[in-house]
Amino acid sequence: MGHRLGDASTPARLAAPDEGIGRDELALATRNHGLPLEALRHDITPPGLHYVLTHYDIPYVPEGTPWPLTLDGRVGRPLRLDLSDLHRFPQVTTRVTLECAGNGRALLTPRPVSQPWLVEAVGTAEWTGVPLRLLLAEAGVEPDAVDVVFTGADHGVERGVEQDYRRALPVEVAMGGDPEVLVAHSMNGAPLPPQHGYPLRLIVPGWYGMAHVKWLRSITVADESFTGFQQAVAYRLRRDPGDAGEPVTRIAPRALLVPPGFPDFMSRARVVRPGTVALEGRAWSGRAPVTRVEVSTDAGHTWRDAEQAPDDGERWAWRRWRYEWTVTPGEHVLSARATDAGGHTQPLEQPWNRGGFVNNLVQRVPVLCLDDEDGSAGGDGE
Amino acid sequence: MGHRLGDASTPARLAAPDEGIGRDELALATRNHGLPLEALRHDITPPGLHYVLTHYDIPYVPEGTPWPLTLDGRVGRPLRLDLSDLHRFPQVTTRVTLECAGNGRALLTPRPVSQPWLVEAVGTAEWTGVPLRLLLAEAGVEPDAVDVVFTGADHGVERGVEQDYRRALPVEVAMGGDPEVLVAHSMNGAPLPPQHGYPLRLIVPGWYGMAHVKWLRSITVADESFTGFQQAVAYRLRRDPGDAGEPVTRIAPRALLVPPGFPDFMSRARVVRPGTVALEGRAWSGRAPVTRVEVSTDAGHTWRDAEQAPDDGERWAWRRWRYEWTVTPGEHVLSARATDAGGHTQPLEQPWNRGGFVNNLVQRVPVLCLDDEDGSAGGDGE
Repeated sequence: MGHRLGDASTPARLAAPDEGIGRDELALATRNHGLPLEALRHDITPPGLHYVLTHYDIPYVPEGTPWPLTLDGRVGRPLRLDLSDLHRFPQVTTRVTLECAGNGRALLTPRPVSQPWLVEAVGTAEWTGVPLRLLLAEAGVEPDAVDVVFTGADHGVERGVEQDYRRALPVEVAMGGDPEVLVAHSMNGAPLPPQHGYPLRLIVPGWYGMAHVKWLRSITVADESFTGFQQAVAYRLRRDPGDAGEPVTRIAPRALLVPPGFPDFMSRARVVRPGTVALEGRAWSGRAPVTRVEVSTDAGHTWRDAEQAPDDGERWAWRRWRYEWTVTPGEHVLSARATDAGGHTQPLEQPWNRGGFVNNLVQRVPVLCLDDEDGSAGGDGE
Repeated sequence: MGHRLGDASTPARLAAPDEGIGRDELALATRNHGLPLEALRHDITPPGLHYVLTHYDIPYVPEGTPWPLTLDGRVGRPLRLDLSDLHRFPQVTTRVTLECAGNGRALLTPRPVSQPWLVEAVGTAEWTGVPLRLLLAEAGVEPDAVDVVFTGADHGVERGVEQDYRRALPVEVAMGGDPEVLVAHSMNGAPLPPQHGYPLRLIVPGWYGMAHVKWLRSITVADESFTGFQQAVAYRLRRDPGDAGEPVTRIAPRALLVPPGFPDFMSRARVVRPGTVALEGRAWSGRAPVTRVEVSTDAGHTWRDAEQAPDDGERWAWRRWRYEWTVTPGEHVLSARATDAGGHTQPLEQPWNRGGFVNNLVQRVPVLCLDDEDGSAGGDGE
């Protein structure tokens, strides 16, 4: 008759074949949200359109709430910094494309039961803050440091484990300058919105979202590897439950299309008229710069190079691409595929892991091209 | 072998018993989003947390795009107004709680297949714009006017019908001052975000969201009742497909709780420790002011009055309420119920209609209270 934490949690599981999305997955899908894909047109994602995933509740932090950030553990001089202290350090602004490690999960077979993303868990923003390496230098990291552990104010239970959200970076990543890790206080020139970590969050350019700890309260330098839930249990690539698994780190390359034409409300099917359709989209990789984007208009049978926008020097942000498509009446499937300078590319068949992480299967966008005579706004199709 | 608009659409349907949420419903749930319920703590919903529903794509309107608003039809002097013209009219700011007409749809049995909201399709903002009645007066409405039709720039197909999103208000509502209908250009003191209708939208305080036409391009005064898709086909209360149905208009009363304690990531179950828990939430009605909020902590068997915040004069916005709960270990179900000055209240058993509209069934929030000894942060429970 006891009432214990474990009663609130259910074990990790895979959906049965043909099992629809359940109430628990829907409860996550209605509170978290992706980027509506037409918003890929914006270089910087407008506020409210950037993807959001929160494990627990969004902490309620009214403006002016004291927020001392502590930095301690294996350091010579522990720090306790309020927001005005942080503003006395050099400030850096970086444009970063952030993607959820679970993006694409709901397309997997079998489907891991968790936040059911299709392909839209992405967004790009300009983040401003203090380079983490400057704070670590100020505190003086001891030579035996191994991991730097970041703790957020978001609190909950997961698989029976009560926790503040907590993740670590290897000390060489935390102290390195490539990528430049930030303790960020601003998003697109304004204080962080509540759902993006107000008042402080970590930004780790090129890494999946789980590393960018929101509502950041403390930083602890440790002389051993961090084994907290979000590091050792969640966010690992496993095929079998008993595997130790590889950690999820940097973002795999991906390209997405702005869906052309207009949608059907319910099916989200895309409709175009015959003629020339300017396809566009974005491509990114956290591993190396994107060097090639290809487009297929025949369900992946043949591929042609898209035209990439000139390099704008924003290494950690997505890059625009374009492709001119001449379309005739019928059903078509569009895809785009990114390849980066490290030779990583997107698979045409879905790899699989139990957590549903690091998916970068090429997107498939079915498009219906109407007959010429159906409607008046036709193009110059043949 | 023709390819026609109807091929993009599927007929309206109800889910089979125990049918999980489908891919089409999920595609809507990942792009639209609700208010994370902990954000009910904010008087004004922070940007990005207000619910969003778009039928088609969010139009891409870069800053500075010319946006002439036309007002024509049964008027003496047709108008064509750009944004600066609108700023020369008197400006009004109103705090409004907006709720989607389909809020609660995914809880219905059988479930109408559409955007699968649970209870979170709500938000409150301060909208600034020009009273519609001033624009109509400037144009001079003819005495035979019946409906005022509003057309947005969002374009798509729905049940085989290609359309710009279009809705009407009876002329007496459009010209009346209670509620004061606005042609709004600002949300919370800033230009409208793209997903909330940039650069112009209609605000109809007290009415469900479908009336608040976004990306507003034209206003047409008509001498007959408007029979467009969103008026005569969608947004009607029907039990059988052949019913003419009653139109969906004003928001029925509803109260929601800020879920207490902390959540489990996957089940979203709420966990508290024994002792005193300050419950709070919001209540609203578009029909008449909320006069009473009751709370049940025993799954609706008994009810006690909550304490409502003093009337702040914001007739069209939600109002805060509080209730102090002494909780002991075990499983509990919390509910809140709003009643308005018109005597409307929330049902304990779910009415049903084919569209899944105007649901205001009382919310049920299961809470697990842990045993005293499970964890260290216990309260003063018995």
